[in-house]
This record gives sequence, C-alpha cells and structure tokens, in this order.
Amino acid sequence: MDGNQATPSFRHFLAFLLVGGLLLVSNACQQNDSQSSEAGYEEEATEQKDYAIAIHGGAGTISRDLPDSTKEAHRQALDRALSIGQKVLAEGGSALDAVEQTIRQLENDPRFNAGKGAVYTSEGEHELDAAIMDGTTLEAGAITGIKTVKHPITLARHVMNNSRHILFAGDGAEAYADQTEVERVKNSYFDTQHRFEDWKESQKDDKQSGVSPENKKTDPFAEKQSKATHQYIKDEVFGTVGCVALDKNGKLAAGTSTGGLTGKEYGRVGDVPIVGAGTYANQHVAVSATGIGEDIMRHVTGFHVGAYKEYKGTTLKQAARHVINNRLNPGEAGLISVDRHGHIAMPYNTEGMFRGAADSEGTHFVKIWE
Amino acid sequence: MDGNQATPSFRHFLAFLLVGGLLLVSNACQQNDSQSSEAGYEEEATEQKDYAIAIHGGAGTISRDLPDSTKEAHRQALDRALSIGQKVLAEGGSALDAVEQTIRQLENDPRFNAGKGAVYTSEGEHELDAAIMDGTTLEAGAITGIKTVKHPITLARHVMNNSRHILFAGDGAEAYADQTEVERVKNSYFDTQHRFEDWKESQKDDKQSGVSPENKKTDPFAEKQSKATHQYIKDEVFGTVGCVALDKNGKLAAGTSTGGLTGKEYGRVGDVPIVGAGTYANQHVAVSATGIGEDIMRHVTGFHVGAYKEYKGTTLKQAARHVINNRLNPGEAGLISVDRHGHIAMPYNTEGMFRGAADSEGTHFVKIWE
Repeated sequence: MDGNQATPSFRHFLAFLLVGGLLLVSNACQQNDSQSSEAGYEEEATEQKDYAIAIHGGAGTISRDLPDSTKEAHRQALDRALSIGQKVLAEGGSALDAVEQTIRQLENDPRFNAGKGAVYTSEGEHELDAAIMDGTTLEAGAITGIKTVKHPITLARHVMNNSRHILFAGDGAEAYADQTEVERVKNSYFDTQHRFEDWKESQKDDKQSGVSPENKKTDPFAEKQSKATHQYIKDEVFGTVGCVALDKNGKLAAGTSTGGLTGKEYGRVGDVPIVGAGTYANQHVAVSATGIGEDIMRHVTGFHVGAYKEYKGTTLKQAARHVINNRLNPGEAGLISVDRHGHIAMPYNTEGMFRGAADSEGTHFVKIWE
Repeated sequence: MDGNQATPSFRHFLAFLLVGGLLLVSNACQQNDSQSSEAGYEEEATEQKDYAIAIHGGAGTISRDLPDSTKEAHRQALDRALSIGQKVLAEGGSALDAVEQTIRQLENDPRFNAGKGAVYTSEGEHELDAAIMDGTTLEAGAITGIKTVKHPITLARHVMNNSRHILFAGDGAEAYADQTEVERVKNSYFDTQHRFEDWKESQKDDKQSGVSPENKKTDPFAEKQSKATHQYIKDEVFGTVGCVALDKNGKLAAGTSTGGLTGKEYGRVGDVPIVGAGTYANQHVAVSATGIGEDIMRHVTGFHVGAYKEYKGTTLKQAARHVINNRLNPGEAGLISVDRHGHIAMPYNTEGMFRGAADSEGTHFVKIWE
C-alpha cells in the first residue's frame, strides 16, 4: 500500500470525523437556541391563519366554588364579546376595529373591571385607563385617570388616530376628550353594588391594619405596609379586559381597558395605558396583560414577550410562558397574545383567568381555569 | 485498486467535505449571532470596573456654530453634575444616590430642560416629569405633570421608596407630594426667558401653519398636522437630563427628569416617567433616553437595550446602537447606558448630545458632538 492509498479503516475514520464533526457543530449551534427546541412544549403549526383573536376579562384568585350560574354568566359574557370581534375579522375588518368593538362590549358589561364595572379608587370615585396599539405602524393611543368617558378604549383610539401624543393623564385626558365626540357620562354611571362592597371592604382592611384612609393619605409608610401585603386585593380578581387580534391583511393590534385597582390612590397610573407594559403590538406580536399593574410595568411585560420571541427565536408560547412563569411572580399576572401567523398564547400564573380565543380554522372557546 | 482503497483524489475530496462542512455549519451558526461578531465594533474590556457613571443633558439639533462661551458653559455645567455623581460613587455611595444627586444638580441649572429650565406647555405653564429605577430590585418611582416640586427626581425616589404604586399623574402627583417633605415652589419658579421665547416661537409656528392655539384645542386634525411636521420643535434640543450609574456594590440605577416638549398639550405623558421607555434599570443594564418621547415610547427604548443585550448575547454598545440606529429614526433620540461590568454606551442619532461619563479606571469626559 503506498502513500496515495487509504486503508478502509482510515476512510471510515475520515467519514466518522466528517459526520461526527457536523453533528457536533450543528448540536452546539442548536443549543444557542435551546428554548425553541425545549421538550414538552407544544409545537406550533406553521400554516398561516387568516385571522385570530383572543380576549381576557381579568386574572386572579377565581374560586372554583363560584356558583354555576355565575360561571355560566361570565362565560356567556366573554363569548358575546369574542363573537363580536370574530365577526369583524371574519368579514375582513381590521384588527384595530375588532379590538375596539370587542373591548366596547366588555366595557358595557358590569362583570368586568372596565367601563361600567370599574372599581372604586381610595376616594370612592372611578378613574379609568385604556390603551390601543397598531402593530403595523407602532402608533398608539392611551388615556389614564379618565372619569367621564363611557368607552375609554374609543377615546384611546381617538388619541392614536389624531394626536401627536400617545398618552394623556387626568384632567388633560378630560380636556382631550372635550375636543372629541366620544360619549360622556357622569362618574356615577360607573357605580355598581358589587364594586362598592369591594371598596368598603378595602377601607375596612385598612382600618384593621391600623391604617385609616385618613392616615394612609398622610403617612407614606402606611402605603409601604400595604405594598407588602396587598391585603386589600386578596381574593380579588385583577380585573381588566383586553383583546389582541390578527386580521386578514396580516395586521396585528392590541387593546386593554380597566378601572384599575380597588382602593388605588388618586392619580395612580397602572400598566394598562403604558405602551410596552399592559399593552403592546408590533409586526410580530400583539399582547394584552392583566394582573398586578406595578409588577407588569417593572417587567415591561407586553414588549418583553415580543422581544424574547424575536431575539431568542422562540415560539410565541415559549416567549409568553417565559415572561409569565420566569419573570413575574406566581399569582401576579396573565396575558393574551397572538403572533403574525395567528398562533395564540394565553398563559397566567394566577388561579384562573377569564379568557377566550377564536380563529379562522374553527377555534372558538372561552375558559376560566385550565 | 480494489474497493477497499481510496484514490488520493477521493481522500482529498473527503477531507475537503469535512473541512468545508465544518466551516459551513460553524459559519451558519455564527450568523445567528452575527450582531455580536460584527466587524468594526469596539471590543469591550472584560475587567470589572469598581464604578461607572454617565449623564446626558438632552440630544437634538445642536449647531456647531454655538458661540464658544456657550459651549464652554454647557461643558462646565455637565462636568459639575458628573463630578457630583462620581464623588458619590468613588466614596462608596449607592448608584441611586449618585443618580439622584447628579440629576438634582442638572435640575438646578436653567440650561437644561428639567427642573429650573423646564419648557412651557401649550398653556404657558410648566409640567415636569421624572423617574428613577433601582436595577437590583426593579423598584421604580415616577411622576408626571407635577407643577410645584423643585426637584422632581427626589419626589420620584420618594414614590419608589414609599408607595405601592410606581407612577402618579397630575393632581394625583401633587397630592402625593403633599404627603412628603419635598421642596415646593410656585410654578413661576420654572420661568426662564429663553424657554419663554421658544414657547412664543412655537405659538407663532402654529399660527403660520394656519393652526391657532385655539383651533389646535378644538380641531384634532390640527394636531395630526403638527405630528407630521414637528415644526415647533425644529432646531430645538430635545432637552431632558438623565443619569445611569454602577456602584461599588455592583448595583445599577437609572434616572431621568424633564420639562417635556415645548408646547406639549395639557396632560401629555412623555417617555421619561414610563418604566421601560425613557428610564429603565435591571441587574444587567441601566438606561436613560432623550429625544422625541413618543418614538422612544413606541420602541420601548430603555428596556429594549437590555432585552437585546441579554437575549441576543451582544455587548452593551451593540445593543444600544441597534436600538438607536436600527429602530429609532434618524434625528429622533439618544441614550446613555451602563452595564454591570461598568461598560458605558452613549449612542445618538441626532446632530449632537450633551453628555459625559466617568469611571473608576480614570475615564472622565464631557462632550457635545462626536
């Protein structure tokens, strides 16, 4: 055998090196993207859906002991709203229209903490927040602390369409509303018996902990104490309503509306009207979150889902679960999300979340627990 | 030659396949992470700095024809503030203290659009915004539309330390301030001749474009027009002040303070008090942005830098430049950032940015242009 001839074993060794080397490098390469091949996650279908929509009506400690009639009433309320948005999309309407119309329906329903069912502030009033965002243009509109607008989501859309600003607060939001034709109501329009009882309960909690509402106003350390315990919102649904949608033109939109936190202080701005926190949409994803607003804000929850998906190269489900399960604390939050292919992810780390989803492939459901 | 023997050319072919295949896969692998190996980027030193600090005093169209005396006065003003923060850090103080003390100094200086030098709203008043964030705990405090607090950054820190909420707006922010000992002033304290002239100019611009301030209030389309042109802020520095710091305990903090946009409408909330937009800090990075607030908000600029760095595995410089150069439009914004190793990145896509940086390794400079 001369130097120009290889033995069979040397040939096999070369081939072994070739295949082994390719596998090794290829494997190392995949590990950089291990999130997207994580075992146990559902594979997402690759086909493009014509349209998709998801809604939520708040996440939190929702006892499974709810009377059946109450469960059923909530399911029907969610289904009514979901069907409105689905119809808009099925008929070729825009994601923005679907989001606005769906949320208007939820704002009309006293069961949800948005519009008619808004909770009471520490002063016994109602201050409402809402935001809407167009994923295609990144245009957004939002308002916080509005007291006299029946449908905050519609005012938010007005801001998006017509103002050079994104967010108006308090009296500035009222002044902005004065320039529009949106329907106005007295603040008492938002009064409901069940929210009033929540509010009375929250005032009582403050007294039991030695912090009267009067002291709470003058003693900032009283608030610090509340911060640690979240006593006054225990057993409370962190009600908020939201909708995300993909339309037949491939456009994404997200919207959220809320009455905020029972007993929240005057002028508090939560996560809902914050672009990137409670509400976010771009060309990849649309997200609406619900839960403890301050924690949703500090984790920049809405934008976080999209950034993780885009920059880590994961599926929507993996990204949404990462933020809800690895970033936010248990019991804090849930979110709904849709990507540009029509995949939907709706993780939550609370006991339950009022939610629903529908798409062009026949999906249509509402749920409260798993 | 039997079937068990390879010709030299076959052996070469196998070796070629092996090497080529390895190169190919290895290359494909690198392309997934191409941002982090992009040619031309400075390599970041790997050693850990004891402390690092960066400040900004606004980005925008800053003409190089500025009189030398004005340039020098700005440089001295930046240097005074930078030195205050650096001293805090060098003496072992916290990043939060460095950020607050530095920004208080900038708020005292009428050259910058924050505190004393705040611009006028469309109503001819001053509404100030500020935020501060602790990267270690993700606690944050912010206020928007405050009119009577001399040092908004100090009130923001008070919110962070003592409230269960993150952000207070308008009268709610005033009510919150009433519970504290922070120094109060009349709104006229913020009056300055040069900002008043900017404001008069902005009112004139509105008239020239056929949109009187009165019409602007009643005709939302007038605002749409303003949105497209940004006429009233041309040749204006998008003044805001900010500071980011890493302390000797390895903790990061970020803070920003502003008088907002000249001629901004009543109740407008910009990017500064939005956690994730104008201000953000976590355990990896601290960021403060300046520029057109609405665009900084829609790109969730502060958080975006950290998410890109963490999830793409890039350097701080690459992440900061990606957001400023690939996401925001030219002429819109700048930012300062520091990571947990003490690396500093201060990219901007405007003509200039008032800025400065210092660290434990002897770095100490202030700059306006490249």
